[in-house]
Amino acid sequence: MSDEQPIPIPDLASTLDGVIGFELLEMSGDRVRARLEVHDRVRQRFGVVHGGTYCAWAEVLASEATVCGVARRGSIAMGVSNATHFLRPVQDGVLHADGRPRHRGRSSWVWDIDFTDAGGRLCSTSRVTLAIVKAPEGGPRPLVAE
Amino acid sequence: MSDEQPIPIPDLASTLDGVIGFELLEMSGDRVRARLEVHDRVRQRFGVVHGGTYCAWAEVLASEATVCGVARRGSIAMGVSNATHFLRPVQDGVLHADGRPRHRGRSSWVWDIDFTDAGGRLCSTSRVTLAIVKAPEGGPRPLVAE
Amino acid sequence: MSDEQPIPIPDLASTLDGVIGFELLEMSGDRVRARLEVHDRVRQRFGVVHGGTYCAWAEVLASEATVCGVARRGSIAMGVSNATHFLRPVQDGVLHADGRPRHRGRSSWVWDIDFTDAGGRLCSTSRVTLAIVKAPEGGPRPLVAE
Amino acid sequence: MSDEQPIPIPDLASTLDGVIGFELLEMSGDRVRARLEVHDRVRQRFGVVHGGTYCAWAEVLASEATVCGVARRGSIAMGVSNATHFLRPVQDGVLHADGRPRHRGRSSWVWDIDFTDAGGRLCSTSRVTLAIVKAPEGGPRPLVAE
Repeated sequence: MSDEQPIPIPDLASTLDGVIGFELLEMSGDRVRARLEVHDRVRQRFGVVHGGTYCAWAEVLASEATVCGVARRGSIAMGVSNATHFLRPVQDGVLHADGRPRHRGRSSWVWDIDFTDAGGRLCSTSRVTLAIVKAPEGGPRPLVAE
Repeated sequence: MSDEQPIPIPDLASTLDGVIGFELLEMSGDRVRARLEVHDRVRQRFGVVHGGTYCAWAEVLASEATVCGVARRGSIAMGVSNATHFLRPVQDGVLHADGRPRHRGRSSWVWDIDFTDAGGRLCSTSRVTLAIVKAPEGGPRPLVAE
Repeated sequence: MSDEQPIPIPDLASTLDGVIGFELLEMSGDRVRARLEVHDRVRQRFGVVHGGTYCAWAEVLASEATVCGVARRGSIAMGVSNATHFLRPVQDGVLHADGRPRHRGRSSWVWDIDFTDAGGRLCSTSRVTLAIVKAPEGGPRPLVAE
Repeated sequence: MSDEQPIPIPDLASTLDGVIGFELLEMSGDRVRARLEVHDRVRQRFGVVHGGTYCAWAEVLASEATVCGVARRGSIAMGVSNATHFLRPVQDGVLHADGRPRHRGRSSWVWDIDFTDAGGRLCSTSRVTLAIVKAPEGGPRPLVAE
């Protein structure tokens, strides 16, 4: 992995996101990047990265990046759907996630998140749709201040 | 949860599926059912079941049930895509997964997996597509003997 | 085709739906059914029913059935996404469409529409997501009165 | 519309693609571009471009571009699935389609096709998955020679 320093995200420790254990490199309403060293808890029983790992990782990155992007207007994001393609099996090494919003509407955002291996090959790609709704009183804080 | 006894599945212990920790109730090429008592590791930081939990759970259920269904003809299943809708947020209690194949072709299978809460309300639904390919020599054994 | 009489739907004549030329058999917020005798304008150049035919047909059936279902509360439906699987190529004969809502929320509905051939075999299946929004003043009338 | 000259594609005349009536600007296994002046037959009854138009147009562009890309190795493409998001309603004017392959594997290709209006705004986006299979004896010719 590169020497780029990850952004601290202590809140995720006991969650599914803490299990995945990714390092966050960049997060805003314009872009999200993260990386992951493959380990047992993101694999299935055949030793390959679990399809659900890509889905879950895309879901948290797109959701949290949208929360960053809409916080100023007093809104939050709620996941609507997640469509993930599995293109190339990965067993070991580092995975990179790189996402950009394809649509930022008043009531919905759509992100594409690409996953590449150490050789830059596309291993999986997710399209995540989120609904934008008015934030409840007092919450929630974005994972990363924008 | 009902008293229905889960099927032992020791192989998943150190994987993402072991983290989710579902109980398997039925698995064959015709049907798959499982249940899960919601716990921290399947939630995101807002206390709600993580969208990725539904995706990952659907992925393993559809994949393993297909492996059961095609083992006799010397084939295995590989995940192609997973499209999951999130319909109702769940925070606590039991979740039920119930899946049936919608298509069982020579080269691909498509499953619909529905997730309901203790009240029987649909919380999420996944459509999982798998490719059917010739099994490599000597492998793999289905999770459940059909 | 059976002798079931189609519901007259004159409004669609000059639209893409008029090109497809399906016969509507049932439409409400609970169910939608239609049929189609395959003709050139729903095929692609290889003589097979065009994938886009299933998508477009699912889109109009789910949209219009939702419009029926939410008209009373002063709402309309707007298409959000359409995910269609192509499972079996069809060249000739009758196609049946049969759809049911999987989710009817305040802000979104999700329909599954199945397409079967004369032999009852599943040829395609669509999952259509619609947003429910307040209807503009004076409009629109449902295609079929519920 | 720009002065760019369309590529003649006479074969589509009596098909659904002929109804849509798009102009093809570029087609190969690396890229596909087309444009369309909106007309009645691509609208639904409310005067807006039919969601099915984007689906069908994406389907033919991705399929035919893949046929171009795999013809040399004696293969053809068959549509597997089409997932289209509708982002902005369009009533009039020109629509541009621009697609690139995201994955070109031995057994499947995945394309993203974006649709923009005259102002360059993203109106719809499709992800199309195709299976690559051995071509039958003597057929088919690609729509455009690569």
